[in-house]
Amino acid sequence: KQIILLPGDGIGKEIMEAAKAILNTIASEYGHRFTFHQHAIGGDAYEQCGTPLPEDTVKACQSADAILLGAVGDKKYDSLPPHLRPEKGLLGIRKALELYANLRPIKGFTPLMHASPLKESVINGSDILIVRELTGGLYFGKPRERRENGLAAIDTLYYHRSEIERIVERGFQSAQLRNKYLTSVDKANVLESSRMWREIVNKKSKEFPEVTVDHLLVDAAAMKLVTNPNSFDVIVTENLFGDILSDEASVLTGSLGMLPSASLRSDGVGLYEPVHGSAPDIAGKGIANPLAMILSAAMMLRHSFQMIEEADAIELAVNAALDQGYYTPDLDIPNGKQIGTKEMTEVVIENLT
Amino acid sequence: KQIILLPGDGIGKEIMEAAKAILNTIASEYGHRFTFHQHAIGGDAYEQCGTPLPEDTVKACQSADAILLGAVGDKKYDSLPPHLRPEKGLLGIRKALELYANLRPIKGFTPLMHASPLKESVINGSDILIVRELTGGLYFGKPRERRENGLAAIDTLYYHRSEIERIVERGFQSAQLRNKYLTSVDKANVLESSRMWREIVNKKSKEFPEVTVDHLLVDAAAMKLVTNPNSFDVIVTENLFGDILSDEASVLTGSLGMLPSASLRSDGVGLYEPVHGSAPDIAGKGIANPLAMILSAAMMLRHSFQMIEEADAIELAVNAALDQGYYTPDLDIPNGKQIGTKEMTEVVIENLT
Ligand SMILES: CC(C)[C@H](C(=O)O)[C@@H](O)C(=O)O
Ligand SMILES: CC(C)[C@H](C(=O)O)[C@@H](O)C(=O)O
Repeated sequence: KQIILLPGDGIGKEIMEAAKAILNTIASEYGHRFTFHQHAIGGDAYEQCGTPLPEDTVKACQSADAILLGAVGDKKYDSLPPHLRPEKGLLGIRKALELYANLRPIKGFTPLMHASPLKESVINGSDILIVRELTGGLYFGKPRERRENGLAAIDTLYYHRSEIERIVERGFQSAQLRNKYLTSVDKANVLESSRMWREIVNKKSKEFPEVTVDHLLVDAAAMKLVTNPNSFDVIVTENLFGDILSDEASVLTGSLGMLPSASLRSDGVGLYEPVHGSAPDIAGKGIANPLAMILSAAMMLRHSFQMIEEADAIELAVNAALDQGYYTPDLDIPNGKQIGTKEMTEVVIENLT
Repeated sequence: KQIILLPGDGIGKEIMEAAKAILNTIASEYGHRFTFHQHAIGGDAYEQCGTPLPEDTVKACQSADAILLGAVGDKKYDSLPPHLRPEKGLLGIRKALELYANLRPIKGFTPLMHASPLKESVINGSDILIVRELTGGLYFGKPRERRENGLAAIDTLYYHRSEIERIVERGFQSAQLRNKYLTSVDKANVLESSRMWREIVNKKSKEFPEVTVDHLLVDAAAMKLVTNPNSFDVIVTENLFGDILSDEASVLTGSLGMLPSASLRSDGVGLYEPVHGSAPDIAGKGIANPLAMILSAAMMLRHSFQMIEEADAIELAVNAALDQGYYTPDLDIPNGKQIGTKEMTEVVIENLT
């Protein structure tokens, strides 16, 4: 299996090393061969090649079986023109590879739940999968420009039926494999694109008679995530709503540093990255939490390589590390032991072997 | 003072009666004259006149000093074509009167804080004012239509500089009168309109040297509202982001049924409405919580009539009612006394006189 590594900015390099070490362990334990090729993206690529997404990186990704990404971004690039900023690398690779389905599982870890901003009675039992459309909508629609001699600005929310159909189908499929309850989020009382979205969901629901569907307006969804997170199973929504709601949801369990994500194409090729950012303030100090990156590697094994047993093993090993009381400085486990990136990686490896 | 009453749907009528009773008490206690004219809007107007926003209602509002609105909406109108739905009445009146500045104060009430989904340590001390742009952006931009023979849909996020300037100015003014800390929320790493927004905020900040400004991406803001609500003072943002974030914020204190809002034009004319919806399931039962509507009337006195003392008096009377242990069925005060809409209104009146 050809795996492209895009460490990117900030703590990206350190946590990528961790994921690589875990994958090497899996390879030798289960008799697989993973070949790694590292490429530049984001601010790192801008420094090296003057662009956040070099041609070379796109080409390598296009012939890969899967891609692991660390993180991109740093405040120091804020003054660059938009097309040179680190985020453009991420948006560009999503679009170039048509990674239209972003999956973000959000589930707490027992030893960390005390850090949730929510009361125990509210957060307990919540286990959500957010399925976000990732290559359409306001993020890519045209025109997006200044108008009227710079006196106005315009962005365009465009969706083709086929773009909505494939992500909605993915939402139903995910719900079918989980608790068979799908919440479709839109703003159908205001947006034309949301009305089309809702029609497509209603039509598609006939193909999945076992899945219960609810429609929820995005403002109501933003409320319910806080008041009743455990009432959700799978949420499917368009790009911008998914961005906002998945970030809101990511802090509910109190351990943002633990959350992985997958961005998939229809043929199963995918890009896997932690939900957290590049944390430039702690980069290079050896204290970054590698677990979200490691869990992203597990998602890769599960979704792109169908290595279910191997993915399960990594997830169990991560859970075991926390149960043993090990945590990195972004977390806290009462009476546990604080350790750094490398030690945490070693603990997970020990639990794996 | 000419006040237009738009009770609308569901519990709108009952809570409007409550607000009227309070205003009559204020009139006689402080020697004012309020004249009320009632008009139809939303589903109620659709039933009576076949449209959610009759010409007659618009005209009356245009010559009013202020408008009180109960609530609009009911699931039973979901199958109507978009231009006949209740929400269209609300969107229409906002646009017709150019009520571009939506103010939503979010602050908990001590006797109700136990109902917050957040831990006490997280929610304590939070006191936020959200200033939302209300007549631009994706809600009104054109084109908004089906394309390519119905195979695609498009909505348009359009902002003219002047629309952004006036709401940003309002944000700075509000911050100046409060704790002098303004958080401007955008998605400048993706949207052209957000980049213009950010430029305007930076420029405008020179006119308010005492106000500290932070820029926050909308996804990060959705996180921070949950993890650190007490780190905010005033938030200023565009229409759709404001819709989502203000609803998210509205549940943090655990008493959505208590939150008022103001939608203002530049000359001070305004429309005042509770943040909660029309709650058709409990309509007509006499158990609706009138306090958000009453507090909306207080906001009217403060913002449209400069009757500061009178507004303060209402707010104190509402606080006193809760401190005395009175609550409606949507709330809960341990060892308190559950009462209905009318009794609650009477308790507030007693506290006023
Ligand atoms: C970096 C940014 C463009 C990106 C997005 O908004 O999609 C990020 O917030 C995410 O959610 O992956
Ligand atoms: C009813 C709806 C159109 C409206 C909006 O989205 O503005 C409501 O959610 C609000 O926030 O007042």
